[in-house]
Amino acid sequence: MSHYDTNLDKNKANHVPLTPLTFLKRAKEIYPNYEAIIYEERNYTWAEVYKRVVKFASALTKIGIKKGDTVSFLAFNTPEIFEAHYSVPMTGAVLNTINIRLDAKTISYILDHSEAKVLVVDRQLHGEVKKALKNLNKKITIIDINDKYADQSKLEKIGDLEYESFLNTGDENYQWQMPEDEWQAISLSYTSGTTGNPKGVVYHHRGAYLMSTGSSVAWNMPNRLNFLTVVPMFHCNGWCYPWTVPMLNGRTICLRNIDIKKIFELIDKYEITHFGGAPIVLNMITGAPESDKKKLKQKVYVLTAGAPPPSIIFKKMRALGFEVMHVYGLTETE
Amino acid sequence: MSHYDTNLDKNKANHVPLTPLTFLKRAKEIYPNYEAIIYEERNYTWAEVYKRVVKFASALTKIGIKKGDTVSFLAFNTPEIFEAHYSVPMTGAVLNTINIRLDAKTISYILDHSEAKVLVVDRQLHGEVKKALKNLNKKITIIDINDKYADQSKLEKIGDLEYESFLNTGDENYQWQMPEDEWQAISLSYTSGTTGNPKGVVYHHRGAYLMSTGSSVAWNMPNRLNFLTVVPMFHCNGWCYPWTVPMLNGRTICLRNIDIKKIFELIDKYEITHFGGAPIVLNMITGAPESDKKKLKQKVYVLTAGAPPPSIIFKKMRALGFEVMHVYGLTETE
Repeated sequence: MSHYDTNLDKNKANHVPLTPLTFLKRAKEIYPNYEAIIYEERNYTWAEVYKRVVKFASALTKIGIKKGDTVSFLAFNTPEIFEAHYSVPMTGAVLNTINIRLDAKTISYILDHSEAKVLVVDRQLHGEVKKALKNLNKKITIIDINDKYADQSKLEKIGDLEYESFLNTGDENYQWQMPEDEWQAISLSYTSGTTGNPKGVVYHHRGAYLMSTGSSVAWNMPNRLNFLTVVPMFHCNGWCYPWTVPMLNGRTICLRNIDIKKIFELIDKYEITHFGGAPIVLNMITGAPESDKKKLKQKVYVLTAGAPPPSIIFKKMRALGFEVMHVYGLTETE
Repeated sequence: MSHYDTNLDKNKANHVPLTPLTFLKRAKEIYPNYEAIIYEERNYTWAEVYKRVVKFASALTKIGIKKGDTVSFLAFNTPEIFEAHYSVPMTGAVLNTINIRLDAKTISYILDHSEAKVLVVDRQLHGEVKKALKNLNKKITIIDINDKYADQSKLEKIGDLEYESFLNTGDENYQWQMPEDEWQAISLSYTSGTTGNPKGVVYHHRGAYLMSTGSSVAWNMPNRLNFLTVVPMFHCNGWCYPWTVPMLNGRTICLRNIDIKKIFELIDKYEITHFGGAPIVLNMITGAPESDKKKLKQKVYVLTAGAPPPSIIFKKMRALGFEVMHVYGLTETE
């Protein structure tokens, strides 16, 4: 086949890098008016999500965030952390999501080790975060998420900036850049340090893209699914669903706290078809009092990861109308 | 984020190259006993298809086929050309499918220009092929497909080898190789030479993989679909469905000749859910006599490409129970 170059040069090939950023761009272009994300009374279409994300990315660049920088998020499952999966990498920076259950010392270690320049944080977490910041030997920009569904008894201002007003300092016409290379980092997550200090795990744009296409095939996910965020988006990027669901023009319904009664209510209200959850959540669902449960109107597909739950949990879940698939994901290697 | 390499070196990264060869391997490993391909009374599971493909690849290497060589196929939509989408690239060679409607001169040009070492050909095509081979200034190994559903009045032996017996010279334990690089060529197709000599178009392993994941998302293809091969597999690799359908553990039902009555019969018999077809096929379906049509038991999704058909065709197809999506595919650029 000597007339043709059988080993096309990847450096010369003028190809589009694999990145999940294109999923949001595509959704905005072909499904602008579909509901994209829902959280309590907040509700954004793809056109709206896209505009918010671009403005937030622009605002980040205005305070100096650039390629290779780290932007940390310490947040519940609210639209802000969903948006971060696009806004942060649009600036070339790396999204570092932090487990909200960590103590001040560990948070401080991660903010230091990741060289975070910005921390976006839910005000409910002020207690540990303020302690963590005191221990930190550097200045860091703090942007508060001021969620009215946060526990009001625990609410306290942390930084001088607030997410919505900061977002509004951004330019909606900001020309964000695709990654120069698909192997560029998109996110940085830390282990919880059970065997020493937390260790960082880097995902690249290519990996996040392929995880999305692969998981939609493996879990047989259809277009326009209704996805409930039970898995925290701070945990392994919510198993990449903040990227996968937009690829499928699916609707993401945010759940701030694990509350079984609320899960059944949201399934009913938004016709949830899919969610992921740790085995403990399946235990909580099957063990919940009857008064907290609702009869499912349609089959709900549930993905669970980690150690396989006992078979009785699968049987009980099926009896309730859930179809559970167990997976194993090796996302953390050193 | 200096503790981490934010631009992971793609040359050092020990990654699995993107290639559709992994789709068949996965299907064989996790769905060995599912029906994979059906053609008249022939019926193979994934385990059987895999074994046949590996044996054919092995047989090719035994006659000297190696990385970068070209293996041409001139075939109707029978299991052999489906299998070629795996067997040929498993040897590192490039699959060149040729339009069965081309004349001897053009076939000869393509066999020469592509530097084909092997031609696998359906015996029904002996007329033009024998003429083409006479014009060819080189020796080429000919392997006949001897299909009992070929037009018997036109059947004549062409080469000294026959597909099934050749396949049986192969070793089922042959250790096929993944491509060294995902940018390596997997297929070579030629234009039909309307503006001069035919021009070759090379697909790489990466492109074939991404076409499969992308088209399953865009067409909302579920796992276990029943796919009818109306688009010829010699045409742009059947729009990559010989790779996409196995990725989804779908069943491929082979249609040798376009015959509307037969299409309706196969839809009914195998519960076909998806097929692709040129606008002319939609014309033939909507214009067919009532006696050739059957009422559809389930919705059938149809993809059509090229110039958009008139809206009346969409309406008529919908009235028959088909859901047509029109796409545009720029697979051929120079």
